[in-house]
Amino acid sequence: MTIAVETFFLTPGAPGTLQAQVQQMIAEGILSGRFHVGEKLPSSRRLATHLGVSRITVTLAYTELVANDYLSARGRSGYYVSENAPVPPVYTPHPRAADTVDWSRALVQRFTGGDTPSKPDDWRAFRYPFIYGQADPTLFDHANWRQCALRALGQKDFAAMTDDYVDRDDPLLVEYIARHTLPRRGISARPQEILITLGAQNALWLTSRMLLNRRRQAVIEDPCYPAQRDLLTHSGCRLVPVRVDADGLPPEAIPEGTDLIFTTPSHQCPTTATMPLHRRQALLARARGLDALVVEDDYEFEMAFLAAPSPALKSLDTDGRVIYVGSFSKSLFPGLRLGYMVGSEAFIREARALRAAMLRHPPGHIQRTAAYFLSLGHYDSQIRRMGRALHERRRVLEAAIAAEGLTIAGRGVYGGSSLWMQAPEGVDSARLAARLQADSVFIEPGAPFFAGPERPSRFYRLGYSSIPTARIGEGIARIAAATRASRRETAAQ
Amino acid sequence: MTIAVETFFLTPGAPGTLQAQVQQMIAEGILSGRFHVGEKLPSSRRLATHLGVSRITVTLAYTELVANDYLSARGRSGYYVSENAPVPPVYTPHPRAADTVDWSRALVQRFTGGDTPSKPDDWRAFRYPFIYGQADPTLFDHANWRQCALRALGQKDFAAMTDDYVDRDDPLLVEYIARHTLPRRGISARPQEILITLGAQNALWLTSRMLLNRRRQAVIEDPCYPAQRDLLTHSGCRLVPVRVDADGLPPEAIPEGTDLIFTTPSHQCPTTATMPLHRRQALLARARGLDALVVEDDYEFEMAFLAAPSPALKSLDTDGRVIYVGSFSKSLFPGLRLGYMVGSEAFIREARALRAAMLRHPPGHIQRTAAYFLSLGHYDSQIRRMGRALHERRRVLEAAIAAEGLTIAGRGVYGGSSLWMQAPEGVDSARLAARLQADSVFIEPGAPFFAGPERPSRFYRLGYSSIPTARIGEGIARIAAATRASRRETAAQ
Repeated sequence: MTIAVETFFLTPGAPGTLQAQVQQMIAEGILSGRFHVGEKLPSSRRLATHLGVSRITVTLAYTELVANDYLSARGRSGYYVSENAPVPPVYTPHPRAADTVDWSRALVQRFTGGDTPSKPDDWRAFRYPFIYGQADPTLFDHANWRQCALRALGQKDFAAMTDDYVDRDDPLLVEYIARHTLPRRGISARPQEILITLGAQNALWLTSRMLLNRRRQAVIEDPCYPAQRDLLTHSGCRLVPVRVDADGLPPEAIPEGTDLIFTTPSHQCPTTATMPLHRRQALLARARGLDALVVEDDYEFEMAFLAAPSPALKSLDTDGRVIYVGSFSKSLFPGLRLGYMVGSEAFIREARALRAAMLRHPPGHIQRTAAYFLSLGHYDSQIRRMGRALHERRRVLEAAIAAEGLTIAGRGVYGGSSLWMQAPEGVDSARLAARLQADSVFIEPGAPFFAGPERPSRFYRLGYSSIPTARIGEGIARIAAATRASRRETAAQ
Repeated sequence: MTIAVETFFLTPGAPGTLQAQVQQMIAEGILSGRFHVGEKLPSSRRLATHLGVSRITVTLAYTELVANDYLSARGRSGYYVSENAPVPPVYTPHPRAADTVDWSRALVQRFTGGDTPSKPDDWRAFRYPFIYGQADPTLFDHANWRQCALRALGQKDFAAMTDDYVDRDDPLLVEYIARHTLPRRGISARPQEILITLGAQNALWLTSRMLLNRRRQAVIEDPCYPAQRDLLTHSGCRLVPVRVDADGLPPEAIPEGTDLIFTTPSHQCPTTATMPLHRRQALLARARGLDALVVEDDYEFEMAFLAAPSPALKSLDTDGRVIYVGSFSKSLFPGLRLGYMVGSEAFIREARALRAAMLRHPPGHIQRTAAYFLSLGHYDSQIRRMGRALHERRRVLEAAIAAEGLTIAGRGVYGGSSLWMQAPEGVDSARLAARLQADSVFIEPGAPFFAGPERPSRFYRLGYSSIPTARIGEGIARIAAATRASRRETAAQ
């Protein structure tokens, strides 16, 4: 393949003759690894035209480079990067002068340094990956997803895929969510009350940006999803973590002066508690008493293979004070980045404008593919299939845990894809997780889910959406062995 | 197709017997239009299990609904929504009680009400669409894009498509941009200095969030891209519009106290001016003198079919004070939502954390498809083909404009896909655009591009990336006729 001519140009004001500059330019491309051995250079005529120099200048430069064995000439065929040229194995751009910019002063705020733990890139290499929230190729309906994506790539959908929607969404997707998805949660919403987002993360962020500032107070569950706490920290608001119990967030513990309450009532993250009906009503009453708003993150409601999920908090909301957040990350796959937000029309209208300013809209092809997958019934089939598999894995997991004598601190009564575990006294789950890595077992330590400074150190989460059923038993056995080893070490100290 | 059983549930605390509640639930689904004529209801056994009621309750409810002609029974086959049922043509959720929330108080800020004009949904219905920035199906390499998308949907790329990247990007795409795309602009960057974004809009928004607050001052070009001004307004910063001339943004007009400068040097939006080299150097010197940072939006640099584009401003930046923003919206399609930002490692690290908090990452499949399209050479072929077509359209356009005696206020010297036009005295381009709509001609009035309050009213933009070459002549003729009619009306007043 010929190296594109557009990749060449001369640096204005560079020293030396034009010929020397052309030579230098090509040599730099080879030395840095941009050009590979065997790649063909543009013809001298094309390069000369592009650079605005005479053809002879380029020809002379090429000839010199052949003499220096950077290039080889193949008769009338042209010039190629020589196999004797000093080509490094990877592209290493030449180092620039150091920055003179004082970034600590330029940046108005820091965004790094939060609680969100990074997932290891190589989690798939673990033999016993009790990781939460990633897709499992054996459970995902890849074939039908591909068919739907292909259909959404067709001529008929060219506009849906390529158009700048500006601030709008794919009407097919919005319509399906309004007619089918939300009613299953007891929610009745018009299209003007629905916004498609880049996943639940995006919806939570939008909400935070719209409703919080330094003078406002937000309540979050403790423990909670770490990335939620991080994004709220950016807002500068007064952040009040409220410790959850076996029924989730206790409304009576929400303090005065609270403006916004973030809650996961269906399936508390990470303890898996389900908030019972009477408490949901109490929470709404408390919110009304405070004139506060509530953000309900209803993630994973579809994984209800043990019992039907209770209707959403939003279905009980007559004031319009609940903002409902849904996501396809767990039921489809997290790399899709697709979710939705449901709220009052006035709120959604502003959210739509903010989203447009931040990113315009979620990509058209993604929205259309999802709309097809949903409306053709593949999604429902997928949910049922995943539910059956997760049910089996859960059964095996709980049996293994019981056999090994490990302690479950929280298990979702209606389903879900994780268990919340507690290690015995004297066992720090972060150290346990590190020890288990060497044994090819991945578990998620629980401390990052808690607000500081006193973070309980014995909890950990076991996801079961990515580990093959056949390996669960051995994985649990290894966790139990490592736990016992940790206890012995602690006792010996 | 059978209506999914998950779509049914009983409202807690509802009045009436269980049977009456089940009947009501089904009737509501029919009356609202959620269920269509002929759709099959779940078997009484399945529905009863799902609802947690006895089977006889459901059977009696079904029987009553048949008696009332909401449902029809087809022997052993089951129950279906009857063709005599009162089904409305569209889904109309029952109206809820009005909100009690005072949103004007709850929202910390308004995001609506900006300058960005909305594009008409039906722009494709215009016979003469001089619209800017949308894809043209006759120019886009749909077949190869589909092939690349299909490949990125394969088993081999399952992880790339489905994984939660958290805060990282597709290494294939980043590598291509670093090795091939940026060097064409004279930019040498390591992967740690590159961030993939949801289009240029996302990059500009991230930058604004990171570097601006109420105490800082930003300079924007006047006129400029309206959505840019809107997003900067959200930051609360002191916004200083600086009027551009035929060479773009004049550095000497940038006032003291400026912290951030937004500029489009390759191809000023919307006047199409290209900033010459000496002025680029002066701009960098001015920025250094102010200890300000510069955001370079290099959109559309690929559409260089008249002359090679000058190297980017960033290629002249030795301080690390230029943040470079690129986008695939014009060279691929805007609905893709893919762009990139290049800056100092310290800046990009923070941008990465902020982006993760806002939306995690651009969807994996999108990134991987683009990486294939780029690395297989389809992108370069596409650029060349688009360039040739746009060159022809430009030629026809300029000839028609000359023939009709219209005035070009700005034409990109190296290419581009729009012209900046000025209507004669007495002709308001917004009124001209409205008049032309009735004649199936779409033009973009220029006033929204300017900062208020004195917005010049005679400019308008003619995009030529979406109008078929054969229709350009007639489109220009209609614009000329409407212009003459407007002048006569003004003269008559």
